[in-house]
Amino acid sequence: MTDTDFARRSAEINDLLCVLNLLAWDARTQMPPGGSATRGQQSATISALARERVLAPAFEAAAHAALDTPDAPAARQALSAVAALRRVPEALTRELATLKSEAQDAWVTAKAASDFAAFAPALTRMVTLNRELADALGYEDHPYDALLNLYEPGLTLKTLLPLFDRLRAHHVALLSRITAQPAPRTDFLRRSYPAAGQKAYSLSAAQRFGYDLGRGRLDESAHPFEISFTRNDVRITTRVQEHFLSGALFGTLHETGHAMYEQGVDPALTRTVLASDLVGLYAVGGASYGTHESQSRLWENRIGRSRAYWEQHYADLQATFPEQLADVDADTFHRAVNEVRPSLIRVEADELTYDLHIMLRVDLERALIGGELDVRDLPAAWNARVKADLGLDVPDDARGVLQDIHWSSGMFGSFPTYTVGNVMASQFFGAAQAAHPELDSQLERGEYAPLREWLTDNIYRHGRTFTPDELLRRVTGRPLDPQPYLDYLTGKYSDLYALAPQEAHP
Amino acid sequence: MTDTDFARRSAEINDLLCVLNLLAWDARTQMPPGGSATRGQQSATISALARERVLAPAFEAAAHAALDTPDAPAARQALSAVAALRRVPEALTRELATLKSEAQDAWVTAKAASDFAAFAPALTRMVTLNRELADALGYEDHPYDALLNLYEPGLTLKTLLPLFDRLRAHHVALLSRITAQPAPRTDFLRRSYPAAGQKAYSLSAAQRFGYDLGRGRLDESAHPFEISFTRNDVRITTRVQEHFLSGALFGTLHETGHAMYEQGVDPALTRTVLASDLVGLYAVGGASYGTHESQSRLWENRIGRSRAYWEQHYADLQATFPEQLADVDADTFHRAVNEVRPSLIRVEADELTYDLHIMLRVDLERALIGGELDVRDLPAAWNARVKADLGLDVPDDARGVLQDIHWSSGMFGSFPTYTVGNVMASQFFGAAQAAHPELDSQLERGEYAPLREWLTDNIYRHGRTFTPDELLRRVTGRPLDPQPYLDYLTGKYSDLYALAPQEAHP
Repeated sequence: MTDTDFARRSAEINDLLCVLNLLAWDARTQMPPGGSATRGQQSATISALARERVLAPAFEAAAHAALDTPDAPAARQALSAVAALRRVPEALTRELATLKSEAQDAWVTAKAASDFAAFAPALTRMVTLNRELADALGYEDHPYDALLNLYEPGLTLKTLLPLFDRLRAHHVALLSRITAQPAPRTDFLRRSYPAAGQKAYSLSAAQRFGYDLGRGRLDESAHPFEISFTRNDVRITTRVQEHFLSGALFGTLHETGHAMYEQGVDPALTRTVLASDLVGLYAVGGASYGTHESQSRLWENRIGRSRAYWEQHYADLQATFPEQLADVDADTFHRAVNEVRPSLIRVEADELTYDLHIMLRVDLERALIGGELDVRDLPAAWNARVKADLGLDVPDDARGVLQDIHWSSGMFGSFPTYTVGNVMASQFFGAAQAAHPELDSQLERGEYAPLREWLTDNIYRHGRTFTPDELLRRVTGRPLDPQPYLDYLTGKYSDLYALAPQEAHP
Repeated sequence: MTDTDFARRSAEINDLLCVLNLLAWDARTQMPPGGSATRGQQSATISALARERVLAPAFEAAAHAALDTPDAPAARQALSAVAALRRVPEALTRELATLKSEAQDAWVTAKAASDFAAFAPALTRMVTLNRELADALGYEDHPYDALLNLYEPGLTLKTLLPLFDRLRAHHVALLSRITAQPAPRTDFLRRSYPAAGQKAYSLSAAQRFGYDLGRGRLDESAHPFEISFTRNDVRITTRVQEHFLSGALFGTLHETGHAMYEQGVDPALTRTVLASDLVGLYAVGGASYGTHESQSRLWENRIGRSRAYWEQHYADLQATFPEQLADVDADTFHRAVNEVRPSLIRVEADELTYDLHIMLRVDLERALIGGELDVRDLPAAWNARVKADLGLDVPDDARGVLQDIHWSSGMFGSFPTYTVGNVMASQFFGAAQAAHPELDSQLERGEYAPLREWLTDNIYRHGRTFTPDELLRRVTGRPLDPQPYLDYLTGKYSDLYALAPQEAHP
């Protein structure tokens, strides 16, 4: 970026967003408990300064002046973000921030007591304010589209719902075929695995994929996440549980996918609008939540849970935990970490049922925002849907409607991006295979650099230059298309569970 | 503080300074190496915003309006800081920031090669810019006073030099009496002490003194330090060396003294000017560098190296390191950690020779700033003074004039505060003893809360409400006075080294 007023103002704004990210990372990984109230005030101050700088008339003028320069893509995004932020009344922004903190407290209490009624008033207010936010932002067909657009620019229910209908029909059918088969052995995943070994192995696997520790680090946190302060400092966290090996292992590979996306953004985009979410006030290099999730899923599931991966690297894991894995071979391990089993908790779900968890949340949250579902009827609707899709009875709200933090944080419209990410991952991986016929044999030899470099060239380096739809079409020649993902799942589980061939899948 | 425009603006500025501190803490303890350039830009952005907010006409107007309110002390300090900052041209501030980064790089290289000539050009420029800074800030007698005032408000060479003359004469004489005696046994301090045990013991000692881990944490760093982001989050670091037990142990107690000062500031001062250094652009609750150092020295030396402390707590240390300390009793340990031995390196010096290291630096740096000493003559002047005061030959510049980071960071005028802190520590401790005749017997029982509470009531809670001189006079009834410190040292070492009584000390 040339040294213009637009570049200087963009750099200052990006600095503030990186600082906001650091304040959040520190609060979640390092900060002593006493620091929380004043940390909230510090974040609010930086957030207000960032918002003030984005909305400054001089920034808009500088962006206008940059429309005829090579910085035009950044300038257009800046102007669109300014317009969006300006449509949201400052009072609503403040109300949402205040409610978020109250609603999270109420949710924590309600979840601990498994008492939905204790959360209902805050959630009702949160739905109302998010509906107001949607009205302020504007939409064509459904208020949910305005919220979805905050996480997945350009995506609407009109595109999403038919796609989800296909996925749900496919997944439910495939699930019933799988659950008719014998379950694989998984007992050994719940043996005692000391934390140090889990972390060391996970980190070495992350580095093997190409996560650069010269510009990154791994910490522990209650909920794993990835966060960046420019491409030069991209951190991940994991949650280590002594008796659940898969948690830290695949959690780390998941965050590694996010992290390599951020580390792969073109250095020329550092401190620009194209590494900033100016509406969400968040420093991020990835094009959208869904695009980001496509990379975490790709590295976690497509690579990390593949047969080829475990044929290559199981010996290392066994060397780390020789006693725990003495009676387990690579094939048994690979089958175990790919077990499909309907469960109540989203974050513990397998690759197939995960989408069912997502889709039920999306249907419920869009009904809440659309006014078709009342908060008081939410637990019953939740439980009915879990029974219908997963065949399970929800024993209490803690393991049901209260399990996720998202709604208490005011994040309506973010759930779809998890499944959209799965869909995109298969599209991107297919394009990589088409471009590199030797890709599969490289992966079978444990060579990850060619794949990572292809992803960097085609996706990562562009940062937020393109919308998710533009990026998909550039890289795959197609819009969002579930077929490669359905083919992948069908093929994978037909193999793992020795399913009889079908005439055609739905 | 009441909810006024002055309070709101002060809170925003303090938030920015706390964020600056967090950026610095993270860079020194957590950040991967690749993050350093963009971190520098992030810090520069926040620093510029803080400066802009302090210099905003509206802040000055708000402070003026607060002069007739209970916030008058904060308002007066704000106005004085605004005036000082305004006297410094922005171009000079920028030049100093740029030079600081260059000079530190040059110093690192020069120190590694023990080649003063490689550092001389950057140091020459640093002296020139600091002289310009002194001229901009203004002074009465000597430009050094303007710089000293940045760290120790109100202190001038006129007060400092006679005090240092007394100290130097006393210390040199006492040192020659001590070195005539047999040296204590110290070999065991350099045995192998695993890091985990060192950290665990040091942290438990810090908590025993009263460091609140609910509002703090201990990390490792190359150079130990304490830093705070309001009194609610006060962090310390230590440097653990396997073969040097005293390093982490007393280093942690030292930083604990700093940290308890910050944790003890009145909550009413949180996010106010009285917890902010508006000239240094640094969030800090202590009144000055010297006042702060008085507390680190008091807890490290007066308490942590006392006979009473080791009589109480040596058993715990021995239990942590049973093999390493099997042949060492409490008395032997106490003597070892109080050994006086002239050495080349300031940060490894004992309590007595430490001041000699400081005084030689102060004499040299004030001569540099005053134009009486040329940078090219500095190494010779350094070596001559080490020979005169410590009786040692300096083998190379790395162990001589290049050993400290301060001058490469542009910190001229901060060295005196280490010795000033020692002097104040004895004055404050004497006042505590006078107020609490039972204090010594409490300490002999390992009861630290009464001392900490007295220090909190009389010093910590006031934050930056008083100048160091005002605070000293309020608490001890006297200005800066070296006599209690000289009496303490003479008494302590006469006992430890069985010195013959003197007619009178110099």
